[in-house]
Amino acid sequence: MKIAILPGDGIGPEIVAEAVKVLKVLDLNFETETALVGGAAFEAYGHPLPEATLQLAKDADAVLFGAVGDWKYDTLDRPLRPEQAILGLRKNLGLFANFRPAICYPQLVDASSLKRELVSGLDILIIRELTGDIYFGQPRGRRIATDGHFPGAEEAFDTMRYSRPEIERIAHVAFQAARKRGKRVTSVDKANVLETFQLWKDVVTEIGLQYPDVALDHMYVDNAAMQLVRAPKKFDVVVTGNMFGDILSDAAAMLTGSIGMLPSASLNDKNQGLYEPSHGSAPDIAGKGVANPLATILSAAMMLRFSLNQPEAAARIEQAVDKVLSQGLRTPDIYSDGTTRIGTVEMGDAVVKAL
Amino acid sequence: MKIAILPGDGIGPEIVAEAVKVLKVLDLNFETETALVGGAAFEAYGHPLPEATLQLAKDADAVLFGAVGDWKYDTLDRPLRPEQAILGLRKNLGLFANFRPAICYPQLVDASSLKRELVSGLDILIIRELTGDIYFGQPRGRRIATDGHFPGAEEAFDTMRYSRPEIERIAHVAFQAARKRGKRVTSVDKANVLETFQLWKDVVTEIGLQYPDVALDHMYVDNAAMQLVRAPKKFDVVVTGNMFGDILSDAAAMLTGSIGMLPSASLNDKNQGLYEPSHGSAPDIAGKGVANPLATILSAAMMLRFSLNQPEAAARIEQAVDKVLSQGLRTPDIYSDGTTRIGTVEMGDAVVKAL
Ligand SMILES: CC(C)[C@H](C(=O)O)[C@@H](O)C(=O)O
Ligand SMILES: CC(C)[C@H](C(=O)O)[C@@H](O)C(=O)O
Repeated sequence: MKIAILPGDGIGPEIVAEAVKVLKVLDLNFETETALVGGAAFEAYGHPLPEATLQLAKDADAVLFGAVGDWKYDTLDRPLRPEQAILGLRKNLGLFANFRPAICYPQLVDASSLKRELVSGLDILIIRELTGDIYFGQPRGRRIATDGHFPGAEEAFDTMRYSRPEIERIAHVAFQAARKRGKRVTSVDKANVLETFQLWKDVVTEIGLQYPDVALDHMYVDNAAMQLVRAPKKFDVVVTGNMFGDILSDAAAMLTGSIGMLPSASLNDKNQGLYEPSHGSAPDIAGKGVANPLATILSAAMMLRFSLNQPEAAARIEQAVDKVLSQGLRTPDIYSDGTTRIGTVEMGDAVVKAL
Repeated sequence: MKIAILPGDGIGPEIVAEAVKVLKVLDLNFETETALVGGAAFEAYGHPLPEATLQLAKDADAVLFGAVGDWKYDTLDRPLRPEQAILGLRKNLGLFANFRPAICYPQLVDASSLKRELVSGLDILIIRELTGDIYFGQPRGRRIATDGHFPGAEEAFDTMRYSRPEIERIAHVAFQAARKRGKRVTSVDKANVLETFQLWKDVVTEIGLQYPDVALDHMYVDNAAMQLVRAPKKFDVVVTGNMFGDILSDAAAMLTGSIGMLPSASLNDKNQGLYEPSHGSAPDIAGKGVANPLATILSAAMMLRFSLNQPEAAARIEQAVDKVLSQGLRTPDIYSDGTTRIGTVEMGDAVVKAL
């Protein structure tokens, strides 16, 4: 088994180092190989996703990814910006199924912006399609408008699109995930306005017939954003497209109050996967030793479960994280009165000790 | 002055009746004319936006709109569904600037899902572009894919687009609105992925140079969804495109906990406007006399201010609404212990009395 380690930018290297430390303690049989990605790769090789990094990721069974991005790359041409590395990995590895759990840890319930009763016990799973939609649709670019409100003016445009098999495969992923949990799927669309999401709704409905044991409902994306804020616990599995999923999964993660705790997985049809924390590269706190490594450590657990077929080892990591939270250990992002404030490395050490 | 009254479906007729009652008491010089729209118009004339209704709206100085939609129309072909009436009015009247205030009334602060300190005093204004973007972009439809992941498969597609002058005019609206408030504009985009929103960001930045007294910042839409949940009071004016604005304005409205209180205005370049509550047609409570008419009454106040040049009358309505809230009068959606529960008509009467 081979794991590609791509620490990236900002706090990426610090948090990935802790996850690797935890993985090594488990004494499983795998190799790791590390490569630069994002801004770090741009600095070294002039490209955020160098050919060697992409090849390493392709050849690995799983990729453990930190985070990429920094304000200082904002003025680069889009193809050279750090986030293109993520988009390139998703596309080239065909990582179409993004799992974004939004869980509220009982020990951290008061960190949420929402009232306690609305989030305590929260456990929803957002499944975002990750290789289609307006993210990759062609044509796109700039041109002179020939119709619309201002013919003759410069305009920019993008193409949203989904094909039937793309929707079918992500729908299967959602229904199968729901079977192992609360047996409910909410499909989020904008079928009242978009052709793309009318097809989405039609196809998800069709696939749903193959899962009579799973309840399916449909919700417009604007309403879904409202219901997430109003009563997030009403959801079980949410499945949606790339663009809506980008927005809703981040909103849901932030609702828990502890985005520093939330892992994510992006899988292809061979269960090869990229695992990364739900939070970003946080350049403002990079190098200060205060970043929370738990989302990355929990991403490593997801990796063991989904791509490396080591569910027991995954559960051990998750239990160890639960234990350090119960011991009252907290990085600054989740600190509250009466708990013990510690740094990135100490948090990694605490998880190792709890194992 | 002429006001077109379009009550629509569900609770629309009940809440609009109360707003009209309030307007009539003010004894201003205007005519009203009422017409069917949405499902009600479909039942009577086979189309959600009959020619006569559209003409009435075009000829009026302002449109007071209730709400449209009901599950029972879900199986109609898209061009016949109630919500096409809204889209048709926006397009035909050129209502490109949508104002969606998200205000937390001090009397209702505990109705929010968010903790008191995060929403108390909240007063943000979301300005959503309303006639462009993927809502109206051509081409759109279904076809056989010739490239992508599954060439040969059926696919559906839509076109996102913005032209430079479309972005310029909504940016001016946002900067001018900010000048009268907190002097801060947050422009929400997804320039890291979309060509359309790279142009958006570039043009808003350019227009911002003409408003040196207004601070401008840019935020990706996923981050904006997070920051709305985490710290909504950090925003002043938010300006964004049609699709992102649909999602963010509903999320922001729900955050206040009292979406039944929130008005909206949609204006064209002649200050002709359509005024409607931010909430929907709520078919489940239609005809029961329990709907909250205050969002519609406050929409009438916005109408007086923006389209009918009657700012004093607008302020009188707003003060009257504030007074009935302070009297503890509440429709069921905003009821809490210790307040007095009343119905739709009684709420309208209370506002009239407070005037
Ligand atoms: C960095 C960006 C391109 C990316 C996305 O929009 O998908 C990020 O927001 C995410 O959700 O992983
Ligand atoms: C009904 C629908 C077409 C509409 C929209 O998406 O614009 C609604 O959600 C709104 O925000 O007014």
